[in-house]
Parts: sequence; C-alpha cells; structure tokens
Amino acid sequence: MRIRLYHARILTMEENCPIFRGEVWIQDDHILRVCRYEDTVPMLAEDSWDEEIDCQDNLLMPGFKDAHTHSGMTFLRSLADDMPLQEWLEKQVFPLEAKLTREDIYDLAKLAVLEYLTSGITSIFDMYLDTEATARACMDMGMRCVLVSGLNNFTSSLKQVESDFCRWNQEHSLISYQLGFHAEYTCSKELLSGMAALAERFHAPVYMHLAETAHEVEECRGRYGMTPAAFLDSLGIFAYGGGGYHCVHMTGEDMEIFRRRGLYVITNPASNLKLASGIAPIAEYDRLGIPMAIGTDGPASNNCLDMFREMFLVTALSKLKENDASSMDASKVLRMATVGGAQAMGLTDCDVLAEGKKADLILIDLMQPNMQPLNHIPKNLVYSGSKTNVCMTMVGGKILYRNGIFHVGQEPEEIYRRCQEIVERLTAGA
Amino acid sequence: MRIRLYHARILTMEENCPIFRGEVWIQDDHILRVCRYEDTVPMLAEDSWDEEIDCQDNLLMPGFKDAHTHSGMTFLRSLADDMPLQEWLEKQVFPLEAKLTREDIYDLAKLAVLEYLTSGITSIFDMYLDTEATARACMDMGMRCVLVSGLNNFTSSLKQVESDFCRWNQEHSLISYQLGFHAEYTCSKELLSGMAALAERFHAPVYMHLAETAHEVEECRGRYGMTPAAFLDSLGIFAYGGGGYHCVHMTGEDMEIFRRRGLYVITNPASNLKLASGIAPIAEYDRLGIPMAIGTDGPASNNCLDMFREMFLVTALSKLKENDASSMDASKVLRMATVGGAQAMGLTDCDVLAEGKKADLILIDLMQPNMQPLNHIPKNLVYSGSKTNVCMTMVGGKILYRNGIFHVGQEPEEIYRRCQEIVERLTAGA
Repeated sequence: MRIRLYHARILTMEENCPIFRGEVWIQDDHILRVCRYEDTVPMLAEDSWDEEIDCQDNLLMPGFKDAHTHSGMTFLRSLADDMPLQEWLEKQVFPLEAKLTREDIYDLAKLAVLEYLTSGITSIFDMYLDTEATARACMDMGMRCVLVSGLNNFTSSLKQVESDFCRWNQEHSLISYQLGFHAEYTCSKELLSGMAALAERFHAPVYMHLAETAHEVEECRGRYGMTPAAFLDSLGIFAYGGGGYHCVHMTGEDMEIFRRRGLYVITNPASNLKLASGIAPIAEYDRLGIPMAIGTDGPASNNCLDMFREMFLVTALSKLKENDASSMDASKVLRMATVGGAQAMGLTDCDVLAEGKKADLILIDLMQPNMQPLNHIPKNLVYSGSKTNVCMTMVGGKILYRNGIFHVGQEPEEIYRRCQEIVERLTAGA
Repeated sequence: MRIRLYHARILTMEENCPIFRGEVWIQDDHILRVCRYEDTVPMLAEDSWDEEIDCQDNLLMPGFKDAHTHSGMTFLRSLADDMPLQEWLEKQVFPLEAKLTREDIYDLAKLAVLEYLTSGITSIFDMYLDTEATARACMDMGMRCVLVSGLNNFTSSLKQVESDFCRWNQEHSLISYQLGFHAEYTCSKELLSGMAALAERFHAPVYMHLAETAHEVEECRGRYGMTPAAFLDSLGIFAYGGGGYHCVHMTGEDMEIFRRRGLYVITNPASNLKLASGIAPIAEYDRLGIPMAIGTDGPASNNCLDMFREMFLVTALSKLKENDASSMDASKVLRMATVGGAQAMGLTDCDVLAEGKKADLILIDLMQPNMQPLNHIPKNLVYSGSKTNVCMTMVGGKILYRNGIFHVGQEPEEIYRRCQEIVERLTAGA
C-alpha cells in the first residue's frame, strides 16, 4: 500500500528544521520519503500509488503523543465533576469501576480512541486496570498504544506485569508495554521493591503517578522520611530511566534525581487544574534540561482528550507561574507534545517525519479563521489551534480519521450506544 | 422568513429549566415559539415554513456572548507572543497599530467574526480604535455587536464617544453602543470626569479595563491614593452601572463597590494567563453575588476566540485558586457565558430561548466522541466541549455558519487573503 501526500507544508519536527513545501510518501506503515519541492522531486509512475492526496498547502506534521491517559474512564465523563477529590474517588469512581467488565473497558476505550483521533493524537500511553481490553480496542481500531500497568496493592500483580511485559512487547506492531505501577501511595514497599527487581531484570524504565498532590508528598514523607521521587529512587526503581505522571510538587532534590537519571516529566495541566492539584514548574524543569512530555490524563479528570487544550495550558500556566509572558515558548511546547512524548513512551520511530519512521502523522487545516493570518504556524498551533483544524489523522500508514469521518472498522454511533448502555447499567440503582 | 428547528433537545437557559425535547420556531429575527413535545405541538401547514431543519436530537441553546474582545487585532495573532508584556506593547502592538487604516480594521474584524461563529458566539462586546470599521464588518456579515470606545488620552474624544453613542444606538438592529474608555491608567482625571458627566447625561453604564495587572493597581494608588475601582467610583463613573474587563486584582472594598452598584465582572482567563496577569477571584465574586460574564479578549493576547476554552478555564482556574475541585460548577459557568454576557452587554432580548427573544442561537452536535456519554450535557459543554461541536450559529434569525460553511456574504478565503496582505504591508521593512 503506497500513499502520496503532495502539495503540503511539512513540519518534520526534526531539530532546527523550519517548515518547507513538499511531499510525504508512505509505504505500508512507514515513511518512504520526505521530498522538498526545492529539491528535484523524483517522479514515480502514477500507477505506483494506491492513493494520492492533495494537501492543498495545509500542514503535515507528526501526530501528537498523549503521554498519560486512562482511556477506559470515558464512562465517568461529566458523571462526577464539581466534587471534592476524595468524595469523587470514594463515592463515584471506585464503586462504579468495581462493576466494570473487560468488555465494558473495551468499548469505553474505543470511545476515547475516537476522541484522540479528532485531536490528532496518534499514540497514547495508557494506564488502566485491564491492559488486555485497551490493547484489543486499539488493535481493532488501528491506534498505537503503549500500555502501562496500574498495579497497586489491590489490583494486578508483579507476575501479571511480567507476563504482560513479555506478551505486549511482541504481540502486535501497534502495541508496546512499559513497566509501571499506580503510585507510591497505593503500593507497599515490598511491591515497589519487586518492581525495582523487574526493572533490573528487563533493564527497563518505570512509570508512575508522582507528586500529583501536596498531600501525597506529605504522606510519603511521613511514611518514609523522603519525597516519593527520592523514595522510589532509593529502591532502584529508576535505575533504567522512566518518568512520572504529573510531577506538580517536586523539590530541588527530586528535580536533581530526574535530571541525573534522564527521567521524563509527563505533565497534565488540565487535570491538575480541574482537581485543584496545582501548577507544575515546567519552566524550571526546562531550565534543568529535564525531558518532558504532555498527557491529557483520563476523561474523568479533564474531561477532554484534546492536545490543543493541553499545549495552550502548558505554556499559559508556565507564564502565570513564572510571572513572565515569555516563558515556555510555543516551539518548546510543540516539541513536548510530539517528539518528547514519543521519546517518553519509547516510540523512537514515531517522533519525526523522516525516511523509515512510522507513518504516524496528521494534516492540519490552515484555511480556518483561527489559523489566519499565517504569521507563525507553530505559535498558531499552540495558542489558537483546535480540534477543528485536524483534517486527517494517520497511524501506521492507515488513515483513521479524515474530514470528520472515522475509518476504524465500526460506526461511531454504535460505540456511543454501547457506552451509554454501560453507563446506564453501572449507575442503575445508584 | 420562517424557520422551523425540530427534533431538538432544548436548553433555554431560563432559570431552573432543564433540557427538554421540542422545537424552536423562528420568524424573521426573533423566536416565535418554543414548543415542548410533551405539550401538544400546534401544527402549521408545511408551506408555512421557508426552511425546516431536523436537529437530529442535538442541542439548541442560546449563542455564547463574548463580553470582551478587540476584533481588529487579528493581525497580531502569533506575531508577537512569548514576549514580556511591555516589550510586546512597545515593540509590536503600538507601532503596527499606528499603521492601520479603517479599511484594514474592517477586514481584520471580519476575520475575527468568522472565528466567533465557529465557536458559537452570537454577539461580541468590542472595544477598538475605530468603532465604525468594526460596526460595518458586523453589519455586512450579520453579526451582533455591542461597541465600546477605547477612548484614552491619545485616541478618540468625549465628543466622538457622545456622537457614536447617539448614532450606534439607533442605526442598525445588530449594533448597539455602550459608554466606555480604555482604562484608568491611559486617561487623565479630566477625561474620566467628562466620561462621568456623559454617564449622568445618558443615565448609562460605563465599561473599561480594570485591575488587569497588579502594576496597574499600584500605579493608581500612587497617583490617587485609591484603587482604580474606588477612584473611578469616586468620580461618579459607575452611577448608572457598567462593569470592568479582567478584574484580576480587586480588594474587598472594590468588590463591595461592584456588589453595591451591580457592576459586571467580565473575566478573560486565557488572556490573564498568557500575559501573566494572574487569576481572577471568580468564586469570591460569585459568593458576593456580583454578576459575571466571560470574554476572550483580543486575538493578540489569547490568541484564540473560543468560548469553550474560556469556559473551561473559568471553572478550572477557580478550582485551582480556591483549592477546591467543587468550585464554580459547570452550570454557573454556562450561565456566565450566555445570560450573564447578554445582561452585561445590555442585550436583554438575546439572553434565553423564549418567545419574542432575538433568534441568536446555536446547534451543538452531541454525536461526537467528546460529548459522549450524555451523562450531563451542561458539564459536557463546559469541561469537554469544543468548536467541533458547533454545527450551526444563527444571529437574528439568519444562519451565518452551518456544518463548517460560512454564510456571511463573502468567501472566507478572500478575507484570509486580505488579512495576509495587511500583515505583509504592516510588517514590511520591520
């Protein structure tokens, strides 16, 4: 299968590569060639192409990487907002989650995938109760997914994590798996030591919720006399890298651990506002050279799966926190949302548009009022971009979303209907 | 001209009126009737209608009111971001604005109107250098606009404001005019006293930028020994009501002035983040019963004209500021963005969907992944809504935007081209 995307502006996201006009050629799941019009574009006979798409001078760029989410939680969207966090968890999230079946999570994850595609997200770093259901939803729809376990004292086990690690890193080209656990405060020291042993065994990075709330950090200090980052590091969890989701409340020492070990901060600004967790010190991480990526967090705590909203918040909240309107410029944020995400997730072949890389890319409609005038396209994307600008989302060489139409093997209305039925069943008698 | 909108869910935004299923009938520029299906819907012969639109069980609601913007500033979008505020104003905004012609502002305002329509915004409260150009752009496109002068020591005059007030409050049904000036710090005491005299003469409310930055408040204290709100009140500016744009840095005394006089806080959260101004104490205003509305601010300081982004930020930033995830629930925010805006702007016949009200309404597509499941439609709108959900925007009974197509008397591509030319001319040799 060969696709030719021509008459495009191209933002490869390679270092110091400005936007240029040209073509991107796709063969099967990867990029065959990125051609600049100022060079001589080699011609292939017309019948070499299965499909030729005129990009009409719109922007081709790598898809966004949603580096932290819980896709299966779509059932909770707008079901439990405007509540204090503890009440939200205890009265709504936990009792309803306890009733979920694997089949439910499969359907609920599919709803999330539809929304990712509308926002130009081509891969997700997904932590949830049942990795099998999410993996299957992604494979069936053509979505790229990096799974990570939500392991804690009550759910899953080291044995399960080990078996999932081995299985999902070889079963399907769209699916991979990273070691991880829910958070320090939901895992015993023994469980965490076991995770460190797994990291050692596989020479693998480890990911978890980290320093999301001030309360979490205080509690950890009470338990172990250390911050969560320092405590986990002391156990050897970070011996082979990894990263933390959220990282809102980090000390200088924590940051030094991250810097030294090359750990990723995966920030989730909308969720941190909505749950009143705080503002992560992104500019400080940037000054220290800590690598960063962006996640939406799950639909229960955001509630939108929209990388444009997150990108705006990363820079806007940094400007507020630093009291400096020049903090975290658009190009840095765009890098976090694409290359940074790919690196954090271990998707080193999905980071930029270049020969041999996976064909995970999006077409951005520039001929809409929020993108005009074309003063500076990366700034337009970060400060005024919106889902309305995503006119095509391609994952692994397959067009999954184009001009508002999904190509995911199932009608969206059927997915909506099934999710509505799940909600009605879960909340019956509540 | 009669239009029948049937098979709809209807959110009238009247007090304590839940969503119901029914029809909205339009005659010329107003709502003829709102019918509930549980009542007997009276039938009209089919040929009574010029157009019948099947809403397919999607949501009809009042359009959003953008209660503070500067439409003509679209040329500055992404031209001057990521700069400290003072440098931004002095190096970019002022020198380029000085070169603008009336014809430029006309075209640039048209670009903004296109974007408002994509976000379901049916009226704007617009402060800019030249009210004539903005008014003409809105009249030509069919947009509703409340003009307010950007009067200051250097631009416009009390005489001009007086003449505009008389002219624009009678010239065209889509256009009205409110008294106002730029801000305390750009106006002499004499000019402000003259404005108070105009308010007295016309028994009219007055609007201005107010307490946007901590610096502004400090400077005013230095000049007059009072905060801007207290100083303006002491001059009699607020004798007939009005309101302030931004209101980020208000004292208890300022709030008491607002409460006592029924003044509107018009909040602009995205702009306040992007320019590092701060977070307005919205929940405190709400507790005091101060009426509120929401604005996008201009495209140079936001840069997006998107009421969905602003609505999310109003509640999310309040949750952060109050350290309370239950602060400012979605229904309050939705009220600010619709009824509150209409009241703040003096558009008392554009606030809700009811017989005799202006037909300023929008159709929200619920069959998209970000709106599913339909657990709670107002929460869906505020927490996960997006421009992609706006499938129709109607102003004064005319459909100006539908399914991605504009009906504004001009092709959008022509507006884009003209605005790009303006930018190129303004920045030539810069």
